[in-house]
Amino acid sequence: MNMLSALTGDDEVAALLSDAAQIAAMVRFEVALAEASAEAGLITAEAAAAVVAAAAGFEPDRADLAEGMQRDGVLVPSLVKQLRARMPEEHRGALHQGATSQDAIDTALMLQLAKVIDVLEQRLTAVQSRLDALRDGHGIRPLMAHTRMQAALPTTWAEKFRSWSEPLVRYLASLAAARRSLLVVQLGGPVGDRGSFVGRGDAIARLLAQKLDLGLASPWHTTRDPIVAFGALLALISGSLGKMGADIALQTQSEVAAVHIAGGGGSSAMAHKNNPVAAEVLVSLARFNAGLSGTLNQAMVHENERSGAAWTLEWMVLPQMAVTAGASLRLGLQLLGQLRFGSE
Amino acid sequence: MNMLSALTGDDEVAALLSDAAQIAAMVRFEVALAEASAEAGLITAEAAAAVVAAAAGFEPDRADLAEGMQRDGVLVPSLVKQLRARMPEEHRGALHQGATSQDAIDTALMLQLAKVIDVLEQRLTAVQSRLDALRDGHGIRPLMAHTRMQAALPTTWAEKFRSWSEPLVRYLASLAAARRSLLVVQLGGPVGDRGSFVGRGDAIARLLAQKLDLGLASPWHTTRDPIVAFGALLALISGSLGKMGADIALQTQSEVAAVHIAGGGGSSAMAHKNNPVAAEVLVSLARFNAGLSGTLNQAMVHENERSGAAWTLEWMVLPQMAVTAGASLRLGLQLLGQLRFGSE
Amino acid sequence: MNMLSALTGDDEVAALLSDAAQIAAMVRFEVALAEASAEAGLITAEAAAAVVAAAAGFEPDRADLAEGMQRDGVLVPSLVKQLRARMPEEHRGALHQGATSQDAIDTALMLQLAKVIDVLEQRLTAVQSRLDALRDGHGIRPLMAHTRMQAALPTTWAEKFRSWSEPLVRYLASLAAARRSLLVVQLGGPVGDRGSFVGRGDAIARLLAQKLDLGLASPWHTTRDPIVAFGALLALISGSLGKMGADIALQTQSEVAAVHIAGGGGSSAMAHKNNPVAAEVLVSLARFNAGLSGTLNQAMVHENERSGAAWTLEWMVLPQMAVTAGASLRLGLQLLGQLRFGSE
Amino acid sequence: MNMLSALTGDDEVAALLSDAAQIAAMVRFEVALAEASAEAGLITAEAAAAVVAAAAGFEPDRADLAEGMQRDGVLVPSLVKQLRARMPEEHRGALHQGATSQDAIDTALMLQLAKVIDVLEQRLTAVQSRLDALRDGHGIRPLMAHTRMQAALPTTWAEKFRSWSEPLVRYLASLAAARRSLLVVQLGGPVGDRGSFVGRGDAIARLLAQKLDLGLASPWHTTRDPIVAFGALLALISGSLGKMGADIALQTQSEVAAVHIAGGGGSSAMAHKNNPVAAEVLVSLARFNAGLSGTLNQAMVHENERSGAAWTLEWMVLPQMAVTAGASLRLGLQLLGQLRFGSE
Repeated sequence: MNMLSALTGDDEVAALLSDAAQIAAMVRFEVALAEASAEAGLITAEAAAAVVAAAAGFEPDRADLAEGMQRDGVLVPSLVKQLRARMPEEHRGALHQGATSQDAIDTALMLQLAKVIDVLEQRLTAVQSRLDALRDGHGIRPLMAHTRMQAALPTTWAEKFRSWSEPLVRYLASLAAARRSLLVVQLGGPVGDRGSFVGRGDAIARLLAQKLDLGLASPWHTTRDPIVAFGALLALISGSLGKMGADIALQTQSEVAAVHIAGGGGSSAMAHKNNPVAAEVLVSLARFNAGLSGTLNQAMVHENERSGAAWTLEWMVLPQMAVTAGASLRLGLQLLGQLRFGSE
Repeated sequence: MNMLSALTGDDEVAALLSDAAQIAAMVRFEVALAEASAEAGLITAEAAAAVVAAAAGFEPDRADLAEGMQRDGVLVPSLVKQLRARMPEEHRGALHQGATSQDAIDTALMLQLAKVIDVLEQRLTAVQSRLDALRDGHGIRPLMAHTRMQAALPTTWAEKFRSWSEPLVRYLASLAAARRSLLVVQLGGPVGDRGSFVGRGDAIARLLAQKLDLGLASPWHTTRDPIVAFGALLALISGSLGKMGADIALQTQSEVAAVHIAGGGGSSAMAHKNNPVAAEVLVSLARFNAGLSGTLNQAMVHENERSGAAWTLEWMVLPQMAVTAGASLRLGLQLLGQLRFGSE
Repeated sequence: MNMLSALTGDDEVAALLSDAAQIAAMVRFEVALAEASAEAGLITAEAAAAVVAAAAGFEPDRADLAEGMQRDGVLVPSLVKQLRARMPEEHRGALHQGATSQDAIDTALMLQLAKVIDVLEQRLTAVQSRLDALRDGHGIRPLMAHTRMQAALPTTWAEKFRSWSEPLVRYLASLAAARRSLLVVQLGGPVGDRGSFVGRGDAIARLLAQKLDLGLASPWHTTRDPIVAFGALLALISGSLGKMGADIALQTQSEVAAVHIAGGGGSSAMAHKNNPVAAEVLVSLARFNAGLSGTLNQAMVHENERSGAAWTLEWMVLPQMAVTAGASLRLGLQLLGQLRFGSE
Repeated sequence: MNMLSALTGDDEVAALLSDAAQIAAMVRFEVALAEASAEAGLITAEAAAAVVAAAAGFEPDRADLAEGMQRDGVLVPSLVKQLRARMPEEHRGALHQGATSQDAIDTALMLQLAKVIDVLEQRLTAVQSRLDALRDGHGIRPLMAHTRMQAALPTTWAEKFRSWSEPLVRYLASLAAARRSLLVVQLGGPVGDRGSFVGRGDAIARLLAQKLDLGLASPWHTTRDPIVAFGALLALISGSLGKMGADIALQTQSEVAAVHIAGGGGSSAMAHKNNPVAAEVLVSLARFNAGLSGTLNQAMVHENERSGAAWTLEWMVLPQMAVTAGASLRLGLQLLGQLRFGSE
């Protein structure tokens, strides 16, 4: 589905959530865990050094990982086995000691999402800047307001730009808040009570968080509300851009022509068409992410101390939502650059 | 569908979102608007007094309102007409002057949601207290942890209570934040630019907010993200309670019996059954609100300066979500009170 | 939420799915079951006569039913108790003998849905007739076709009417098919294997189906695909009417004015507005039913021999979907009658 | 997201819906259209031969197609340009003559879905065969039935197998019906009225359908109910397999142990675990497809004669649904093969 992703996807965000990025983040987790565990006295400094050495230059056997994924439902057992095979036998137990797959996967996700948030913030800021510039350049132009699909009363483009821009301010604030509330370390051990770290769990978690530049939190294997709330934010971003897309598609209708799109899409059958492709796709992305948001909420019903069913559902949904929010911002930025007013 | 609402509904929250409550809140808006408009010099003090007098003891003609709803898609034109009929002719224009239906309806909703938030906060606090008490009374009891639907390792009930409780702390914080970010006055006039208030719009909005104890905001007719974000929070509340329900349904299975429910549901065919009805319904409510959350997000694509399609969709979804979140907390509180451990 | 239902609801379909209708259908089930059981030799003719007598003129104690609903998660235990209280003690066991709550509730639902299908068929046929009349009266009128929100090439209104009409033909066929595939008797006993009818279950089911004019089927307590497929059909109906609504809202835009709506909605602020309220609400209904359709599908994951969680979710969703489909057709029919072409 | 697709994806179905498969199907459409157009007298036999020659051995320039996709929102203009570049100038106009992008894309989708249906039928039949064999081998084994998450009464495994199997019979019938109702040719021209084929449209459509082994239909650019109904069927398939997965996850719980899974998943932390990974993932897939089904329904609101927004949404959703249904059947088949009863 590569071709479609040229239209509806986002290469930059997708790369941050790729297999390669996830594996790298999980290896980073294992290294930081070993270092933290050594500092906290759970494993020896030599063992930690062996983990660091094993991770250096590690190239995963991806076929083996995929096989492990199919069998175990998670990558981690295979990944740990591959890493351990690069270690002296006496230190192998120190890798991943006390941890569970979910510690590695959830913490890795946070490392990945930190970068996704960077991208989203940059793009939200860029869209805002462009809206500011449009307001400065064209805000005083008259615009017929439309309510309930009917011409209502005259207003100005400044009002339109304001309505597109104000939610983005809130999203930037929400992303900043998500850095604190979402981007936290996961460390619970097999059943989420840190019992496997024999009294050193809290100390290790604190050190781990420092090393990975993540917040500290009690284990959250089964309390997925920050993940789902982040998905809700991604859907809001796509939603507001979808509203902008819908407005532009309506304003560029042949009969309305309040604004024009430079370089809209062509048709295989009608040479005169100048289709508002990006505007329409913004609506598609909004509806797609809206739907996924509902599905992600279904993953809140997380049975007992770990639900394979609910957790796998998150994996199927959240990355798509991030890519879609990224695509919304990418297309929104492009589309604003294509708007032409009056005789421009 | 009264019977079903005995199981899945919530009378208290439903009453706060009833027709009667909405009409009362809209009348309160019109009165406060008239007073604010008089203070700001848009209308005379006499006219404002006439609005106050018309509102006092007002009993709406509900058949006429329903007819207006069908015709106009909103209650307000009929409501304004009914109120104006109670006023001396010379002051009638002062009622609702400069305002649009959406100003009345959205502001009224905020007044109603303020009370809904009160109820949710009280119940979240009550559920938390009960979880604290359970932790104090039973937290040290051993519990077999289950991951991926299999017995894993022993832990304690304290961990279970913690996992049920921690998200609720976050929801209380989110509700407190929603009081500031969501509960704001709506005042924009016909096309959302306050032009109809001829230069006094900002002053009127400020006074209106004070009188109604709401926050101040620029017009948000078309930027519905705070509404949709509130819906997302409602779904999270139901989701976490649904997780608790799923855990309890699993732990009370005949073969597991880690805890018992005093006074579970009976069966028409099997006298020995003690069904975890409330636990199961918590799961239903979670899934229902999850789905509605996705649908509410579809209302983000709000065309131009007012979308009847998107706005009506909000009305169909948001009240149900609030009632469902209320029901989740109501049932969760009941269920926690029914839990019996060991030989209790 | 009465006022809103004046706009988005449907009194006729809602009545068919009301508490009163459900209780009446469940009583009808119990009577037919008793008669079938007597004919099959499971209970005596005297006992069956006692059931018939108890049902005659039965007025349920609704407060007691609501209490039972809360406690048991189903109405049936309370209902059976109320009916048995009207019977001589020696025959009480014959009422509901061998059956389970789900037999009564699911079969009652089928009796109710049979009438819902009647209404939907009548309305689909009425919408089609009106479309045929429009095609005959106005089909040759020219219409500018719009693709991707841009004027494309001229076509005729006949094409528009065709595109609105053709799906309805398919829905009528699907409803006719649903009469056979969906409207079947439910009889399984406590765990769905008819074991409680001690060898007479198949015979009783056959007789029961005859008496209730329903199809025969093996027990389907846990196989809910016909229910969910019916929901999908309801969403398609609302979807096609939503497409029609979107088209009309676009065609009646002030700048396009390809058609007019006689008696559209008024505004509280702009006397010149003629809002396409019904057209917009058709879009709302389509999006609402689309979302509910996804939620109903979540109820397919029905645990073991009866899932209170999944089944309750169906109850929360399916009736709303039927009412919404009914409202779509009601509004669609109204809206088509309001269309005015040219100088009409 | 390759690794995840090892768990939740389906290589075979994904290949049928890949870019390569889509391009091949679109080329096949263009060839058949040219041949049909020649037979119907719209273009010359020489021109048709030139189209056939251009298609033979055609290797698309995929970078150019991706660029076209981004610009035009559809692949077809670029594809047509590439094919025309391989033709003598005088015949270039004959390629795609009278057609629109949607004719090519929708018809290509039908050619692709025909093969997807083949795969789904094969797998449904295979799952059924395995269920028949299980019933023959283990049906008489006793099983404790569970209703509302509680042990109810004894039944047999035969009942369980029956409940898993019966819906599949219906899905096979629905797939057979979909071959007739869904797999039809799309030919409408730019605005869906076949006007561009200057009187020969119906004849060309008939010939085209014959050549491509598809059904005949009037243009359905904007009436997407057969597509959405097919999506609903895909969700039902995943739903029923999800029910089976939920049952198996419950039955293989450590405390219930009514059946065992040979070769379940391992844990990175607990060597004794035998996780029902496939069973859990079946639940994930069901919930994922349920959610997507709701989103696909949103695409029913298809504005005017072609909605870029609604159509693009279909592309984002339907292929994922088909892959997910394929994965459900793949995993279900695998899981049934892993079940071990008693001392097996």
